[in-house]
Amino acid sequence: VTLAVSAGPCRYPKLQYSRAFVNLVLVGFGNVARAFVRLLDDRARCPEVLDPPQARVVGIATARHGCIVGPDGIDAEAAAALIEAGERLHALQPAGIATPRDTLDTIARAAALDRRVPLVMIETTRLDVRDGEPAATHVRAALTAGAHVITANKGPIACAWPALRDLAARHRRHLLFEGVVMDGIPVFNLVRETLPALTVTRLRGIVNTTTNFLIAALEEGRSFDDALEEMQARGIAESDATLDVDGWDAAAKAAALANVLMDAGITPMMVDRTGVGGLTAGDARAARDAGGRLKLLMEVRREGGRVLARVSPQRLTAADVLATANGTMNALTISTDRLGDITVVQHGGSLVETAYALLSDLVTLRRRIVRDSESA
Amino acid sequence: VTLAVSAGPCRYPKLQYSRAFVNLVLVGFGNVARAFVRLLDDRARCPEVLDPPQARVVGIATARHGCIVGPDGIDAEAAAALIEAGERLHALQPAGIATPRDTLDTIARAAALDRRVPLVMIETTRLDVRDGEPAATHVRAALTAGAHVITANKGPIACAWPALRDLAARHRRHLLFEGVVMDGIPVFNLVRETLPALTVTRLRGIVNTTTNFLIAALEEGRSFDDALEEMQARGIAESDATLDVDGWDAAAKAAALANVLMDAGITPMMVDRTGVGGLTAGDARAARDAGGRLKLLMEVRREGGRVLARVSPQRLTAADVLATANGTMNALTISTDRLGDITVVQHGGSLVETAYALLSDLVTLRRRIVRDSESA
Repeated sequence: VTLAVSAGPCRYPKLQYSRAFVNLVLVGFGNVARAFVRLLDDRARCPEVLDPPQARVVGIATARHGCIVGPDGIDAEAAAALIEAGERLHALQPAGIATPRDTLDTIARAAALDRRVPLVMIETTRLDVRDGEPAATHVRAALTAGAHVITANKGPIACAWPALRDLAARHRRHLLFEGVVMDGIPVFNLVRETLPALTVTRLRGIVNTTTNFLIAALEEGRSFDDALEEMQARGIAESDATLDVDGWDAAAKAAALANVLMDAGITPMMVDRTGVGGLTAGDARAARDAGGRLKLLMEVRREGGRVLARVSPQRLTAADVLATANGTMNALTISTDRLGDITVVQHGGSLVETAYALLSDLVTLRRRIVRDSESA
Repeated sequence: VTLAVSAGPCRYPKLQYSRAFVNLVLVGFGNVARAFVRLLDDRARCPEVLDPPQARVVGIATARHGCIVGPDGIDAEAAAALIEAGERLHALQPAGIATPRDTLDTIARAAALDRRVPLVMIETTRLDVRDGEPAATHVRAALTAGAHVITANKGPIACAWPALRDLAARHRRHLLFEGVVMDGIPVFNLVRETLPALTVTRLRGIVNTTTNFLIAALEEGRSFDDALEEMQARGIAESDATLDVDGWDAAAKAAALANVLMDAGITPMMVDRTGVGGLTAGDARAARDAGGRLKLLMEVRREGGRVLARVSPQRLTAADVLATANGTMNALTISTDRLGDITVVQHGGSLVETAYALLSDLVTLRRRIVRDSESA
């Protein structure tokens, strides 16, 4: 996967040093992380955009292509090219500096490089959303080593939020994860930065693209398997389709949203979950014939002091904004006690949008680091 | 209009003093401003909500009920009760302190009270959206006197944005106006706080509730005049209906959005504007029969280095998220160069939502004042 955002090659060492300069350790270097470094480089060279972040990659950890650290910066574009050619990364390991043993060693070595420059772990490994591993272990290791953390992985937030939040606070580090729901479309930042002094009372959303696409295919009379194969080929469906089809992905997002926005303290296992596996073209068409749409709906609500979360196929009326979330669109309705309902709609999902989530978190993190240093 | 948000009476002097304490001068004390002081008091007494702002009203200026200043705080609830009883405010003017002559004198007197406590003008007067007056004059006077400004008035931002932005910067004061479009739903804060490092390329929206409601009434076969009267009785339509019907309100919002988010430097007069006056029930029904919806659409786009804005009735397809914005709903689609399209939907508008816009700006302002004092 190549991303056509940049005219020239990516050369981090050319970027200007400033107080906001950060070192990055990339844990996971798949499609999303590679799109991120290319987007970062593209943005850093556009003076007309706000807040170009200035960052240097000093470590990359992968499960299948090896791990490297480079105190003076790693050429991320060259690393991406090696991965895309199916090669290992070791050719880029600077001479005289030992190759890291594994992911945790890469994090530790990156953290030991230069304590004056903030280190940020960009965590994008594949994970099991049911237990949040190995991402949660990476997040704990990074925070404990003194790194800030940006992750697009829902697992840690869905499965271990209160503990990770407290760990970050104890080490005075930031943990950001805008990409967990609806890619770079603001959800967590929306509530935290722009909706002060109110309480979130309910959440309803279409947050899993694969099932959304599958149901739309059913409406058109196409087969489940055909549609699923197309999504996997386009890189939108997870490689393990059961995570989407059985509702685990949506359940993990429900748990993450419930934990962060409604202080629920739940895990994906505690979400009342029904997948789309049992649905037929007849079900989808019956909903449409009745003037509505069938959707895999995520719902989180308070009931008697508890926060309850559910993922299940539901028939939505045509007047429901969520019913217009077709194809690769996602949508989330946030109910509040003072501002009524707000719906945020993502019109299309792709690698660039997920990569933008990481970039947006990096800019937010830079603002916070500057603020922290000013108030210190 | 009374707002049932608070169990007890509003007593500002009881609030705790802190570094973030601000003085407020309320310029305009109509339904929105009165809902705001009640919401502020309600939120300030709820420890479970984030960021309860702590503020004290030290001046109120009205066109028909007189003006007052009170260095030790004015009982805003008592002032609201006087207004609602049709009385003048002078009974609340503290003994030994001269009654202000007019609005500008009220602002000047409030600014002279105590320079150690930040002063914020809350500007909610009625205005002419075509020239932005008298609100723009109030904003200039307040910034020049050293006050921060929060306004729900689109006029100044639509008609005089570059000059006011520069004036605020010169005096190192903040000018916030989230309520100008879609009440308290984040639009300006959304882009500024949560969408860094990208460029807004296009805006499309349904931003005028009255015309939205009028077209819906046409679809139902109701008369234009009936529907308009209902909106005015509910306080949603402006008292001068031509501002809505002829598209001036939407044009002012288009200019405000274009100026702030796309640096257009335009005024409402420069918006290509067609109102809903010429529409018939037949037009509305024809759109519906064709599977779409007729809407007064606001559009802003770049073309050849210029930013063009248009307000006109348009037929939207059923698949367009904006087509689901019915009744008192508003919606705005923001197109960007890196994150595709984002739509934000407001599900209902009321006084409380407009008042929340002022509250949300006050919390944002408090965060900025704290940040300014830390970096000084």
